Amino acid sequence: MRAALAATLRKAFSAAETALRPCVASKCLDFHLHHCQSSDPAEQRPGSSILGRDLPEIWATPSAASPLLPPPEPQSSCVDEAPTPVIIDGKSIAEEIRLGLSQEVLRMKAMINKVPGLAVVLVGQRRDSQAYVRNKTKACEEVGMRSLMAEFPEDCGEEDVLNVVSDFNRDPSVHGVLVQLPLPKHLDEERILGAVSLEKDVDGFHPLNMGNLALSGREPLFIPCAAKACVELLLRLGVDLKSKHVAVIGRSNVVGLPTSLLLQRHHATVSVLHAFTNNPQDVTREADIVISAAGVPNLVRGHWLKRGSVVIDVGTNPVEVSSSLRCCKTYSWTDPNSEQGYYLQGDVCYEEALQLASAITPVPGGVGPVTVAMLLANTLDSAKRLYSFT
Amino acid sequence: MRAALAATLRKAFSAAETALRPCVASKCLDFHLHHCQSSDPAEQRPGSSILGRDLPEIWATPSAASPLLPPPEPQSSCVDEAPTPVIIDGKSIAEEIRLGLSQEVLRMKAMINKVPGLAVVLVGQRRDSQAYVRNKTKACEEVGMRSLMAEFPEDCGEEDVLNVVSDFNRDPSVHGVLVQLPLPKHLDEERILGAVSLEKDVDGFHPLNMGNLALSGREPLFIPCAAKACVELLLRLGVDLKSKHVAVIGRSNVVGLPTSLLLQRHHATVSVLHAFTNNPQDVTREADIVISAAGVPNLVRGHWLKRGSVVIDVGTNPVEVSSSLRCCKTYSWTDPNSEQGYYLQGDVCYEEALQLASAITPVPGGVGPVTVAMLLANTLDSAKRLYSFT
Repeated sequence: MRAALAATLRKAFSAAETALRPCVASKCLDFHLHHCQSSDPAEQRPGSSILGRDLPEIWATPSAASPLLPPPEPQSSCVDEAPTPVIIDGKSIAEEIRLGLSQEVLRMKAMINKVPGLAVVLVGQRRDSQAYVRNKTKACEEVGMRSLMAEFPEDCGEEDVLNVVSDFNRDPSVHGVLVQLPLPKHLDEERILGAVSLEKDVDGFHPLNMGNLALSGREPLFIPCAAKACVELLLRLGVDLKSKHVAVIGRSNVVGLPTSLLLQRHHATVSVLHAFTNNPQDVTREADIVISAAGVPNLVRGHWLKRGSVVIDVGTNPVEVSSSLRCCKTYSWTDPNSEQGYYLQGDVCYEEALQLASAITPVPGGVGPVTVAMLLANTLDSAKRLYSFT
Repeated sequence: MRAALAATLRKAFSAAETALRPCVASKCLDFHLHHCQSSDPAEQRPGSSILGRDLPEIWATPSAASPLLPPPEPQSSCVDEAPTPVIIDGKSIAEEIRLGLSQEVLRMKAMINKVPGLAVVLVGQRRDSQAYVRNKTKACEEVGMRSLMAEFPEDCGEEDVLNVVSDFNRDPSVHGVLVQLPLPKHLDEERILGAVSLEKDVDGFHPLNMGNLALSGREPLFIPCAAKACVELLLRLGVDLKSKHVAVIGRSNVVGLPTSLLLQRHHATVSVLHAFTNNPQDVTREADIVISAAGVPNLVRGHWLKRGSVVIDVGTNPVEVSSSLRCCKTYSWTDPNSEQGYYLQGDVCYEEALQLASAITPVPGGVGPVTVAMLLANTLDSAKRLYSFT
């Protein structure tokens, strides 16, 4: 499996770098930098992964200089000339990440007799939340981490939830505390999320973490998992984010905001589009990379994309099998959930995007599994930090 | 003076609203909003100012519906057709703001016998820092606030600075503590700024303030002054920020970052450009509003701008009178500092921008004085919060 994955990544690297506009230093502004890339190769990371405890100002980029190519042609309807896009296999990448994590967990157990622990708080009976929590706890156990869960009925009291968060904060065997969102409306989300210990905020939603992600020169303790997953996928694809124009669709606290902030740390030029954006396709058509986290099935159509762009689809929208949204035939029809009366549809009209993109994430099997893997990575980081284990 | 100012603002309102692309609801995406504008007029503010303690999700916008106009023509070299742009008089606007603040200070003094106090920490002999601090303390005293200052030599110890910050934190007559940046390199800026009490962080640079500015649904205690000044000027100009495409040039912690975050709270579509952005003019030419905080004199040339755009120039670059940068003749030549061997030059080539913009801030006399006024406003807010004075 790993040989196939490596071949896929090599292919992806080649296709994406050829298609994307290269960073031409002479074309850049030369005004004073707040994030300066180190010229010392020793300060640059050898790999493209963002896994690990440190948050560098910039991660290493492929060492081979990109050939000076003309910018890609504007998108046209002539699909015959389109190269075969790379389907970014999030499932395999997540598997590879989990493999690395499980080895680290084993090493920690062997050397200091400790195991990272993740505690999840689930309130109510939402089917999607239950499925997410199931995935997380299952993945946790698969890599040898300890998993705890506290479940509450929909009508529970706020103090009960706060008490269990407080218990998890105090529990030395717990290194990450996650409150599954959304919470029922009668609960104060800000208060409950704020109660999670900063050192165990593996979701990275605490304002102090977000502020430190936003501010140049600061380091957050944790980066939100979906943002980390998007950037991880791009880096593993071999995309040099520096100078790339990225359109981020959606500005949620959970995905859009942290993704836009993390991309800026990689020196990407970011445009954040949202519900009030006029003619968003005018911006996305100019973007080298489109990341959609709008939560609207089939929002991003083919004519929204520049030929050769990379498309990362964070949307996982449950759509009834009988829905008229079928008009856009997608990869998602292979989703096994379809037997349960619904399937997962991304924000991107997959079949249309395939004609233009140089690389694209499917839904399901794209960003989702990597996001879960990043949660485990954050939990491992937290435990390593607590025990000063390197 | 105030009648003239009102006339200027009316003119600005009319020119900017005519020139800027109107918000056409039907053109907007209709996906789920994270920031929803209230449909209840009672929840919307009557004025366009952002002064005051509360940070609404969105401020009131001009009530008159914008006529449905075609988008402005693309920029051309035919300058004869250009309408006369509005010169945004930051000096007069700041004066008006200070007048309001001084009335509030008097009211506070009369009702609870308290006066807001601002403490400034200055390290070293930088001429620009000394000038900024002088402006701030002078403005402070002019509106009746108390002003304190602690000065240190360039080679002072970190503990000495931390001790005085700590003293100011404890002093009940101090409501705002400001550490003038940049600090000498041997001092740990993060540690010193982090020592400022969150409740007195009138610069708004604390990561928790920045995180709460970034996160939807949260409220920072303070918004950084330059960001607040830019938005204040736009709102006073009558610009409805919702759906406007804003290019923010520069991503500093002090200006670019908080400005981009604040604009998003107003539902603007924001693109952040920086030193690694390829062909920034391709983005600025599509922008309804260009805000430049790059610190590079004459960076933004005429061909960077769309006809009818609004230009906010945050750059205040000291340029020697003998400099070859004179090539771009600007308003700044009237700067009295020119007698001292240098003059202040903005990031924008003023003469060229005048041919395209519908409104523009001069340098000096644009954003600068309003930024200082916003510092006073934050200090007043802090005192009001402490005393629960409304």
